[in-house]
Amino acid sequence: MVSNKSKSGRASANDRIFYCPDIPVDILERDTTSVDLPENEARHINRVLRLRSGDTIRLFDGRGRLYGATTRQASKQTVVAEITHLLDTEKSPEQGVSLIVGTLKAKKSDLVVEKCVELGVEKIIFFEAGRSVAHKAEKQKKTIERWEKIVVSACKQCCRSRLMQVDLCESLSEAIEKTPSDSKRLAFWEEAHESRNNISAADDAAGKTPYIALVGPEGGLTAEEIDIALEANFDILSLGPRILRAETACIVTATLLQERSGAFGKYFAR
Amino acid sequence: MVSNKSKSGRASANDRIFYCPDIPVDILERDTTSVDLPENEARHINRVLRLRSGDTIRLFDGRGRLYGATTRQASKQTVVAEITHLLDTEKSPEQGVSLIVGTLKAKKSDLVVEKCVELGVEKIIFFEAGRSVAHKAEKQKKTIERWEKIVVSACKQCCRSRLMQVDLCESLSEAIEKTPSDSKRLAFWEEAHESRNNISAADDAAGKTPYIALVGPEGGLTAEEIDIALEANFDILSLGPRILRAETACIVTATLLQERSGAFGKYFAR
Repeated sequence: MVSNKSKSGRASANDRIFYCPDIPVDILERDTTSVDLPENEARHINRVLRLRSGDTIRLFDGRGRLYGATTRQASKQTVVAEITHLLDTEKSPEQGVSLIVGTLKAKKSDLVVEKCVELGVEKIIFFEAGRSVAHKAEKQKKTIERWEKIVVSACKQCCRSRLMQVDLCESLSEAIEKTPSDSKRLAFWEEAHESRNNISAADDAAGKTPYIALVGPEGGLTAEEIDIALEANFDILSLGPRILRAETACIVTATLLQERSGAFGKYFAR
Repeated sequence: MVSNKSKSGRASANDRIFYCPDIPVDILERDTTSVDLPENEARHINRVLRLRSGDTIRLFDGRGRLYGATTRQASKQTVVAEITHLLDTEKSPEQGVSLIVGTLKAKKSDLVVEKCVELGVEKIIFFEAGRSVAHKAEKQKKTIERWEKIVVSACKQCCRSRLMQVDLCESLSEAIEKTPSDSKRLAFWEEAHESRNNISAADDAAGKTPYIALVGPEGGLTAEEIDIALEANFDILSLGPRILRAETACIVTATLLQERSGAFGKYFAR
């Protein structure tokens, strides 16, 4: 049993984080500052953590707001929380990073989703690539739901209050259409022995356009997919001489582009 | 059954890679260019892949040389290979990257070892950190053997012919002693909200000293460990506002430092 009654009665950085998507933006200005927690979070609080009424917790709305709150148990299935104050607001990054990734094996895609949440990636769009192991259509919904659960759980773990978006498309063209047209588009291809482009750091810093990185599935991108990418103004780049596994290429790409957009603080800032 | 008889009779980039540590450096100048493959590789060739005598394979010596060879089956347990030519030589990097990491849970440390091989890390030294889940002394040998197997298998996968070294120490001080004293030493600490140092990219490029990065275990580095690191001339740095899992911090650190040392080619070169 965990009891979290701080002396001040206000939630702190040590309190558990729960996801509550339905918090009105202006809740702290309203007469009623209480919210119903989603069923799965309520169950977790009641059955696993056994928090008591009056314990302090933290709630994030998935859109960048992290609140301090206290629990008020209503029934076995439900938990009502009283929001007391705003703890933190996470803004959209100036230069976001999104990934378009050929569908990977389940465990590998799960790893990529988890790590990209931690790295601060805005969005991952998976697509059925020529060399992807095909997903059955009826499983797609379940797959997206699984990824969404991983996103929420990784957000809690790394204190991220803006959800990463995940999507799954039938084709590369469809995936590209879902990204802004003014983005800086980069495709990473192991057959690009020398990068066809050599964009300097200065070029990048000048424009704060978001990055879109395309990474192939386990078998790599096909020549047809590279043609589609070229048509859509992607630069075709290499990640050096070693052959990275698909999931490693995703994590490396996300890390390097997040670094370019200043996500890792001073030391790594250019 | 896989049969790999190329028309030229010479191994190519599609042929399977096996590890053979005992290849003399001057083998191609000798009268006898045949080598006995290690028992586990021979077993794999005979029982799993069922390669035939005369099939082309690739062999790496773990010290940077990748050879073309043809198999010659000797018995059920042994395989003799005839080395035909040198395919590639991998030199030590000008500015290598090594990691000192607080021992992680088995699966997490395995992931870090695999990914660091792909990323081109020179060496990982794990140490029993204050907040590590303690390893039993009698298990240490087995743990190192498991990591060494992962190193070999990841080398094959990413075509790396120089083995990454792995080690396991009792303490942080012992681990630091195993690294060169003229290295650029960086400790990543989640409690370093602002990096105490802000070393410019130019500073780094000037000196080609190797990087040593210190990353804590799941619970993070203790204040005592940070004191030891400061004493040993480590700079204490942050990886930004989000709390990265220990294994993510290892992969991110390795990626960012490898990028600084030019491992990802032109695009990401500074």
